[in-house]
Amino acid sequence: MKTIYIGLLGCGTVGTGVARMLTQNQDILQARVGAALKLKYVADIDIQRDRGIAFETGVLTTDAGSVVRDPQVDIVIETIGGLGIASALILEAIDNGKQVVTANKALLASQGNSLFHAAAEKGVELAFEASVGGCMPVIKTLRESLVGNRIQAMSGILNGTCNYILSKITDDGDTFEAALAEAQRRGFAEADPTLDVEGADTAHKLAILTSLAYGTHLNLKDIYVEGISRITPLDIEIAAQFGYKIKLLAISKNRGNMVEARIHPTMIPCDNLLSSVNGALNAIMITGDAVGDILLYGRGAGMMPTASAIVSDVVDIARNLLAGAVGRVPVLSYQRSHIHSIPVMPMDDIISSYYFRFEALDQPGVLSKISGILGTHGISLKSVHQKGRKSEGSVPIVMMTHLAKESNVQAALSEIYRLEVVSDVPALIRIEDANESA
Amino acid sequence: MKTIYIGLLGCGTVGTGVARMLTQNQDILQARVGAALKLKYVADIDIQRDRGIAFETGVLTTDAGSVVRDPQVDIVIETIGGLGIASALILEAIDNGKQVVTANKALLASQGNSLFHAAAEKGVELAFEASVGGCMPVIKTLRESLVGNRIQAMSGILNGTCNYILSKITDDGDTFEAALAEAQRRGFAEADPTLDVEGADTAHKLAILTSLAYGTHLNLKDIYVEGISRITPLDIEIAAQFGYKIKLLAISKNRGNMVEARIHPTMIPCDNLLSSVNGALNAIMITGDAVGDILLYGRGAGMMPTASAIVSDVVDIARNLLAGAVGRVPVLSYQRSHIHSIPVMPMDDIISSYYFRFEALDQPGVLSKISGILGTHGISLKSVHQKGRKSEGSVPIVMMTHLAKESNVQAALSEIYRLEVVSDVPALIRIEDANESA
Repeated sequence: MKTIYIGLLGCGTVGTGVARMLTQNQDILQARVGAALKLKYVADIDIQRDRGIAFETGVLTTDAGSVVRDPQVDIVIETIGGLGIASALILEAIDNGKQVVTANKALLASQGNSLFHAAAEKGVELAFEASVGGCMPVIKTLRESLVGNRIQAMSGILNGTCNYILSKITDDGDTFEAALAEAQRRGFAEADPTLDVEGADTAHKLAILTSLAYGTHLNLKDIYVEGISRITPLDIEIAAQFGYKIKLLAISKNRGNMVEARIHPTMIPCDNLLSSVNGALNAIMITGDAVGDILLYGRGAGMMPTASAIVSDVVDIARNLLAGAVGRVPVLSYQRSHIHSIPVMPMDDIISSYYFRFEALDQPGVLSKISGILGTHGISLKSVHQKGRKSEGSVPIVMMTHLAKESNVQAALSEIYRLEVVSDVPALIRIEDANESA
Repeated sequence: MKTIYIGLLGCGTVGTGVARMLTQNQDILQARVGAALKLKYVADIDIQRDRGIAFETGVLTTDAGSVVRDPQVDIVIETIGGLGIASALILEAIDNGKQVVTANKALLASQGNSLFHAAAEKGVELAFEASVGGCMPVIKTLRESLVGNRIQAMSGILNGTCNYILSKITDDGDTFEAALAEAQRRGFAEADPTLDVEGADTAHKLAILTSLAYGTHLNLKDIYVEGISRITPLDIEIAAQFGYKIKLLAISKNRGNMVEARIHPTMIPCDNLLSSVNGALNAIMITGDAVGDILLYGRGAGMMPTASAIVSDVVDIARNLLAGAVGRVPVLSYQRSHIHSIPVMPMDDIISSYYFRFEALDQPGVLSKISGILGTHGISLKSVHQKGRKSEGSVPIVMMTHLAKESNVQAALSEIYRLEVVSDVPALIRIEDANESA
C-alpha cells in the first residue's frame, strides 16, 4: 500500500483534532483512500503537553521549518492560525513543492491572492475547506457540486459566537453583554470577542466565498461589516412579534457586473430555514440559477468538526497525488485566466427593506414629522407601530419599509435624529425577505 | 482547448434540463473546467418535439445504441429512467469503455451491485449524484467531505411527493386523499403515486446511501418500508399539540455489526431542523463521529435541480479524464476490497419510542386494560391522553412510550386490537427524538 506523508504545523485544539482523526480513524481512511495517511511530523512550540495521542518517537518537534523542508513530506497542514509565522511557513512549504491545507481564514482573506498565486506558480494545491463553516462542505459544494450553476446569491450564518449570543438574547431575553459573558463562560467566545462580534471573522469567510462563487479576486476591504453589539432584546422581541428572527448574516449577491458583499444583523422571516439555526451552529443558503436554494448546516467550529474538513482536504489531495492529478480542480473554482476583479457594490447603493425603531417623545405630530422625512427621501412605509413601553417620556415607534436605497435611508435617519422629539440614535436593521427583495 | 464528448440517452424532463444546462451555461462551465463539454448526441424516441434548445444538426437521434458505441463519446448520461432499456444501454456503454452518469435510483437499487461490478472490471466510472436528493450533494458529501468520519446515522426526507402531501395535511387539515389529489394537480405526484407514497422510491435512495455510508453491498429487499397513506389529519394535529411534526423519514443507523435501514412516517420534535423542511423540498441529516450532525437541504427533484447534480458528475468525470485520473474516488466510497455484506437489523429488533392512538369505547376500565397489556410486554408509558372528539361512542386515547422493542410493540398492539372495547386498528407512529434514542 502506498503511503502519503503528512506534516502538521500547530497542535492546538484543531491540530490535535486532526492528529486524533488521522490516528483513530486510520482504518476507515485506508479503507476509503486505499493508501496510508501517515502523520510524520507534528510541530508545535509546546511538545510536552499530553494531547491524549500516542505519537511515535520523532513525530513531535518544535522545528516547523524542518517539516516544510523534509523531502518525504507530501502534504503540510497549517493549523497555527493568525497572521504571524503561518504565512512564511506556508510559502516555504509551497516553495518546497508541498501540497498545503489550511484553515486560516484570516490569512487567506488578507493574503490569499499572493498565496494562491505562489501555489499556482509552483503547481501545488492550497486547500482550505475548513476556513469557512467548519465541517460544512461549502467550498466543495461551490467548486464542484454547483459547477454548472451561475451563483446568484449566498446568505450565511458563519460565526457561531454571534449566533449563540443572538439565540441567547432571543430565548432568554438577555442583554448583549450578559449573553456575551455566558458565551465566554461556555467557551463559545474568546476573551477578546471583537473579531467575532464585530463581524470581522464573518467578513474573512465571506471574502473567500465571494471569490469562489463569482470568480473574482479576494477583496476583503470592500466588504461592509456591521457586528451585533448594538442589537437589543427589545428589537429581537419586536422582530418576533412580526414573525422574524435577527441573525448576523453574511450576504452576497450577484449583480452582473458588480457583487454585493455585506455583513450585518438581518431580520429574516421564520419560514426561512436560516431562522431555525440556533446556538453555535452555522448554515449557509446558496442560490444557483439551476438549483434554486440549497442549504448546508453544521458545526462551524470546534476541534473535530474542523478536523473533519481538514482531513477531507488531505484526502482530496492524497487522491490527486495517487492518481497523478494535482491541480485537478482549480483552487478558486475558476481557471486562473477567468478570475477577474469584480467590484463590490458600495453600501450606499444597495437596495433593501428596513426595520427602524425611533425613541420619540409621546406627543402629537411626531409620527407625521418622521414619516414626512422618510417620504421626502423616497422611502415608502409598509407598517408603523407603537411598540414596547414608554420610558422617560419617550415611546418606541417601529417602522418597516418597502425596498429603499441605503443612501436615502442613511440620509433620512440622520435628519430624523436631529429632530428634537427624537431622543436616541434610531435602530436600523435590514430585512431579507424572499417576498420583497431587490 | 480540449473537448469532452457527451452522449445523452433520454430527453424527457431531466434530460432536457441537462441539455439546457450544457448549452446555456457553457461559458461558465468552460471557465471552471478549462475544457469544452460538447453534447454530441441526444437520443430519444421522440426527436420531433420542441425542447426549446437549438441542437446542431445530427445531435438528435433515435438510435441510442449508436451513441454508446461511438468511439468519440467520452461520457454517456442516462436519463431514460426505469428498469427497461436503461440497464442494457448502461452495460453496453461500460463495455465500450464509456464513463457513465445516471440518475436512475430504481435501477441502481435493484441492479447496482452488478452494474458497479461491470464498471469496476472495465475501469470506468459510474456516477449517480442525481439519484438521491436531487441537487443536494449528498453522494459527494458522504464519499468525500465526510471521508474521515465513521457514519453513525442518517435520517432524510427524500421524497418530495410525500413531503408535499404531509405538509399539505399539516397546514390545511386536508385528508391524505385530498392532499394527494392536489399534489397530482400541481405536478408533484404521478398519476400512479404508489412508488412515491408507499415509500419504494425512498427505499431505493436509502439503499444507495446505506451502501455508501458503511461500505456494504446494496441491499434493497431487507429495508423496512411503510408509506404515508394511513396518516390522518388527526394524528398530525395531535403530534403538533405535543410539539412534533410527522415526516416520512428514511432512517439508517450504524449498529456496529449490523445496520438499521427503515422507512416510515416518523414523529420528530419541532426543534429538529428536518421538521421545518416543508413542501416538495428534501433534506438529509448525516451524523458522523467527528462532525456530529450536518444537514443538506434542497430541491430533491425537478428538471434543473436534477440536471445540476448530473452535470456535477459530468464535470467530476471530465476533470478525471483531463487529469488522467479515472477512478480517483471509489464509486461506492470504499475500496472494493473493503465492501462487505453488513446485515440489516430485522425490523422486529429495532428499539424506538412510539406514539399510539386507540379508538376505544368511552367506559371505565378501558385505559387499565390497554396499559396493562402494554405493561406485560415491557412497554413503559411516558404519557397518556384523551385527545380529539368522541365519535360513535368511541374516543381517541393517545399514548407515547419510552424506548421499546418493535416486536413487543407489535405483539401488544395485536392483543389490544382484539379487545372488544377497541373499535379500530390502532395507529402507530415511531418517534425519533434526540432526547430519547437507542
